[in-house]
Amino acid sequence: MADSPNCDLKSLSPLQLFERVTEQGEKVRALKAGKAPKDEIDAAVRMLLSLKLSYKTTTGQDYQAGLPPRDLVLINNGTTKEEDEDFVDPWTVQTSNAKGVDYDKLIVRFGSSKIDTDLINRIERAIGQKPHRFLRRGIFFSHRDMDQILDAYENKKSFYLYTGRGPSSQAMHVGHLIPFIFTKWLQEVFDVPLVIQLTDDEKYLWKDLTIEKAYEYARENAKDIIACGFDINKTFIFSDLDYLGTSTGFYKNIVKVQKHVTFNQVKGIFGFTDSDCIGKISFPAIQAAPSFSSSFPQIFNGKENIQCLIPCAIDQDPYFRMTRDVAPRIGQPKPALLHSVFFPALQGAQTKMSASDPNSSIFLTDTPKQIKTKINKHAFSGGRDTIEEHRKYGGNCDVDVSFMYLTFFLEDDDRLEQLKQAYTSGELLTGELKKVLIETLQPLIAAHQERRKQVTDEMVKQFMTPRKLAFEF
Amino acid sequence: MADSPNCDLKSLSPLQLFERVTEQGEKVRALKAGKAPKDEIDAAVRMLLSLKLSYKTTTGQDYQAGLPPRDLVLINNGTTKEEDEDFVDPWTVQTSNAKGVDYDKLIVRFGSSKIDTDLINRIERAIGQKPHRFLRRGIFFSHRDMDQILDAYENKKSFYLYTGRGPSSQAMHVGHLIPFIFTKWLQEVFDVPLVIQLTDDEKYLWKDLTIEKAYEYARENAKDIIACGFDINKTFIFSDLDYLGTSTGFYKNIVKVQKHVTFNQVKGIFGFTDSDCIGKISFPAIQAAPSFSSSFPQIFNGKENIQCLIPCAIDQDPYFRMTRDVAPRIGQPKPALLHSVFFPALQGAQTKMSASDPNSSIFLTDTPKQIKTKINKHAFSGGRDTIEEHRKYGGNCDVDVSFMYLTFFLEDDDRLEQLKQAYTSGELLTGELKKVLIETLQPLIAAHQERRKQVTDEMVKQFMTPRKLAFEF
Repeated sequence: MADSPNCDLKSLSPLQLFERVTEQGEKVRALKAGKAPKDEIDAAVRMLLSLKLSYKTTTGQDYQAGLPPRDLVLINNGTTKEEDEDFVDPWTVQTSNAKGVDYDKLIVRFGSSKIDTDLINRIERAIGQKPHRFLRRGIFFSHRDMDQILDAYENKKSFYLYTGRGPSSQAMHVGHLIPFIFTKWLQEVFDVPLVIQLTDDEKYLWKDLTIEKAYEYARENAKDIIACGFDINKTFIFSDLDYLGTSTGFYKNIVKVQKHVTFNQVKGIFGFTDSDCIGKISFPAIQAAPSFSSSFPQIFNGKENIQCLIPCAIDQDPYFRMTRDVAPRIGQPKPALLHSVFFPALQGAQTKMSASDPNSSIFLTDTPKQIKTKINKHAFSGGRDTIEEHRKYGGNCDVDVSFMYLTFFLEDDDRLEQLKQAYTSGELLTGELKKVLIETLQPLIAAHQERRKQVTDEMVKQFMTPRKLAFEF
Repeated sequence: MADSPNCDLKSLSPLQLFERVTEQGEKVRALKAGKAPKDEIDAAVRMLLSLKLSYKTTTGQDYQAGLPPRDLVLINNGTTKEEDEDFVDPWTVQTSNAKGVDYDKLIVRFGSSKIDTDLINRIERAIGQKPHRFLRRGIFFSHRDMDQILDAYENKKSFYLYTGRGPSSQAMHVGHLIPFIFTKWLQEVFDVPLVIQLTDDEKYLWKDLTIEKAYEYARENAKDIIACGFDINKTFIFSDLDYLGTSTGFYKNIVKVQKHVTFNQVKGIFGFTDSDCIGKISFPAIQAAPSFSSSFPQIFNGKENIQCLIPCAIDQDPYFRMTRDVAPRIGQPKPALLHSVFFPALQGAQTKMSASDPNSSIFLTDTPKQIKTKINKHAFSGGRDTIEEHRKYGGNCDVDVSFMYLTFFLEDDDRLEQLKQAYTSGELLTGELKKVLIETLQPLIAAHQERRKQVTDEMVKQFMTPRKLAFEF
């Protein structure tokens, strides 16, 4: 064991290794202080050096007393082992990394572009306002052709926004709000039309649901979306099951996309198999079609070439890579995109929040008490195992779910930075950080519930009626 | 050669064999009459017997002097050799048999039922009229669940008719009229609603056409269909590209079918491959959906379970086998069917008339002169090679395209029978038979052209507007 400490050290976590090095250092100091026999001291020193070497090999960093490992998971993930690859498609997000998916690698893999400081500054100049916290904090982190949208905007050419949601259950969770909060902001700062697709047909195809139930979920979800505060004169919300039977423009674009995409292609992009139903196989065209303004003749006066900007979570990108591939072949402009990170599950950023797992989610219908209990009970902590360790080494904001949620919902940049420093230094305990999150989310959700109560069936009907919006085309 | 006459006789056609037997018989008679040497006569007789054996082996019939082979092709086709199998799917009809596809075998292969005398008599009793010539003459020869339709009719329960057309070019040919002539008759004798689907989306997906062109063809073809004399108060004609964007009931049924059919299934039924576009792969659901009354809420007052009867050519059956398989799984009644034979190409019944081959088709826009020229020049004749042979052996009505067309269009049963006997006996020459066909088709097509001139754009619009029909549900 002393001769080859690495053998069973490989199974240790970086933190365990860090502790073994610290212990061994103390042992060497004690042996020296106790004037132990030279060969015993030498053996302990060789063991210490060996442990330090193991630490460096594993973490890529030199051991520093009092400075426990921080960025280890990223480094492990940086290796090219296949099993460490993140898995991201429109239905599943999975990573072994407690910090979440490696988004820089995803940008390379998907072939999109990073939203860098230059682009954020350009947006700020174009709109004459401070960019949204989702941009400032890298929550929307990737894009396609956002420069073109800004070119158009600066040349007084209009564009429109398109986002959506798959209504899988009556209750939406806080993560579902992210694209809508950001889209609302985009609509306000750019003053453009917005279309919101509710893919009730997709949910019917994928889940054990009746058509009627899927449509009911769509209408219920529309209420939560409306409660985000969208302008009824500038926003059209539609259920596929409804709108497909109301607009010939929409179906024509669907069939155009369907003509230009083969089964081989959707098999490659979405992983469909021969056993999948033909509805799933052709569905990607239905999510693609709203990227073209001719799907909404009532809004765009039949105009075909209004540019589209799609804010969405990065897992939806496969649909729009396909759409962008088809667009020039059917004489349409490619939609531009802004991609967000996933909203992590309470249990940790290895997977995204999912409405089908109630313990992973804070619902928009949760009471203040439920919110408190869920966060206290389930929110994965980046703190240390004991208060003493926490005070000594500090918490890890990179894996702490409460801190992650605060980056999404706490508007005040200075406060967020203070919390980060206090938690990292060990000054702020996990319970205290959770309290800040609870106190941030409770009023936010209560206000949402209040606004949702104001949403009448009549309002839903109006939002969902195909009509002209407050823009001339 | 004399010892094994069968060796190179196998390559001869039955008629050539017949002629060789006849020649050899004459040779034997001549040798005997000329008192030839006995061994020479014996050799000729051995040869004659051998030829007669070959003839019997090939045709299954004994040689009879003066009675040339008739049913040979059927018998050849009756063998189980794979290469003799007829090929029938919604896009291709091909057989090696000059009489056309073996429809009895198709009934067995497709698992449908033969329209027998009992069923025709039952229809006659139900409607109190002589059945249409298409029933009397086996042109509609196969069905599924027609008994159920008659049960319902006799119990005063309503049903509706559904037929359709893929509008692939502006000009329709006479073969395209068959389902419409028959459907019009069915509608009149049963007095039920009728929906007619124009699959312009299918044509866009399969052909090198724009959406606009496909839709234009649909509207042009609607004029020819209307010119068949359908009652505007009882008939709804719809283009998929149009109606899919007008009726949520239709799309809901499409997506229901799409959820219950896998790629494996459509691959098996329609022969799709991984290289086919996703539009083709999901299209069968669009042809299936009009089989359910809930696709037409405006006609059936939202009622879901009105039985449907589909008159169509047998090549469309794969769509409806699929539909009938799905129906109970989505809580809908199975549509009933009446299948017609194919309308043969001018060149012969080995393939059906196709608008994409102008020489194979008589178009509804053809002038009397064009009709005459096409029939005289291209209509495959069942007559003999010379007038002398024809007078001696007679013509073959089973392969004669002019005679086949007369079975479709000549109403008078007695006249048709007279023509058959006269042609078969050799009394009527091919040119004379063609003249009868020309004189039958010219006024029929001229009358159609006259009616078509009366069809205004306004009438097309009315027929194609989703609306209530003259029936209460």
